[in-house]
Amino acid sequence: MKPFQIIAFDADDTLWHSEDGFHAGERRFVELVSPYAADGIDVKAALTGVERKNLSILGYGVKAFGLSAVEAALTITEGRVPTSVIADILDIIYRQLTAPVRLLPHVPEVLAQVGDHYRMVLITKGDLIHQTHKVETSGLAHHFTDVEIVLEKEPSAYDRIFGKYGVPASEVCMVGNSVRSDILPVMALGGTAVHIPYPLLWELEHVDHDEHFAELASITELPAWLGIA
Amino acid sequence: MKPFQIIAFDADDTLWHSEDGFHAGERRFVELVSPYAADGIDVKAALTGVERKNLSILGYGVKAFGLSAVEAALTITEGRVPTSVIADILDIIYRQLTAPVRLLPHVPEVLAQVGDHYRMVLITKGDLIHQTHKVETSGLAHHFTDVEIVLEKEPSAYDRIFGKYGVPASEVCMVGNSVRSDILPVMALGGTAVHIPYPLLWELEHVDHDEHFAELASITELPAWLGIA
Repeated sequence: MKPFQIIAFDADDTLWHSEDGFHAGERRFVELVSPYAADGIDVKAALTGVERKNLSILGYGVKAFGLSAVEAALTITEGRVPTSVIADILDIIYRQLTAPVRLLPHVPEVLAQVGDHYRMVLITKGDLIHQTHKVETSGLAHHFTDVEIVLEKEPSAYDRIFGKYGVPASEVCMVGNSVRSDILPVMALGGTAVHIPYPLLWELEHVDHDEHFAELASITELPAWLGIA
Repeated sequence: MKPFQIIAFDADDTLWHSEDGFHAGERRFVELVSPYAADGIDVKAALTGVERKNLSILGYGVKAFGLSAVEAALTITEGRVPTSVIADILDIIYRQLTAPVRLLPHVPEVLAQVGDHYRMVLITKGDLIHQTHKVETSGLAHHFTDVEIVLEKEPSAYDRIFGKYGVPASEVCMVGNSVRSDILPVMALGGTAVHIPYPLLWELEHVDHDEHFAELASITELPAWLGIA
């Protein structure tokens, strides 16, 4: 058994599906808006560009995506988009916000097994109300002593959280799918991180790096990696 | 000096102006959308109705207001609203999200004075990124040992926060402008609350009640009420 006081988990795309919903929303956006776009416009790239521009004021999550998508529909079509398409974009957003949580395979069993040996916490970013609803309806909340919803997963945010727990970063292991948000910032503090990739990654989560860290194909490999299987 | 361990402050309309910005946004919405609304539509009431409908999935804050405003513009006009008006609505939202914090009069001096005698915390609800930006840019963050941004200011949320601090509600005094969100839930836990009304109150914050609690005309009266003036 490895010498950690806390195992911290990311939520979206680590415990449950998330990015596939955004990808489906983007594909639908491209279908809806492309007929009204000028020739030669890369509709998908323009949407991502608007999201990137707005990240510092809108933050992460479905509401931010929705406002950026409405803006992008207007700018890409120079205002020619019909209002029925704006209504369809709102519908994409509301469906995503109310969709049931879809857990990744074997997550409940693995959390039960790890929870027998370790204190576990959940650290996620995004929209306060949507993330809270997902945690509450996931059926997984009871596994975690603490749930943290942060604005940005940067070293200072992790440092503040670990400090609040009174646990040095060197005794924390973070498990997540995003190298940029879950792995590198925890390693920067001297902590341990385990990468479990999800098949899809949002462009704005991409990062170049040359760090080395553990990578597992599935969360089912985590107990063995922790030496508790 | 009154026997509190903690003085907790609300933020919006208690430390800085907020509701006047929403009111201005609503007035502008009515100006923009009314020319395209059918005869006999109460545009303002319809906007509030859409906000109320969406509250449980969008939560509080400017991004939620923005998505509800776009939806209301479409439904009120049966889709006749020009896309230039949708762009104007987005502009209202972005201006509100990036507007500088406007402190209420004498707030910095009062916080400095109360902070000489008491531990102070900030408890606010709303949008994670917008509230965080307001706290960080207000110049007031250093007065507070903790800043809590919650989904809904209900007794369970206050109970969880006070429990985390290890302080009984009976030794907390909450200061805020909303009877529904700041006063009644803290009193329900056996805590003390001080009401400092703001000239404007959002419809969805209105509550009927017959409780008795301290009411001050301005935050400048707080030190005397606490017995430290």
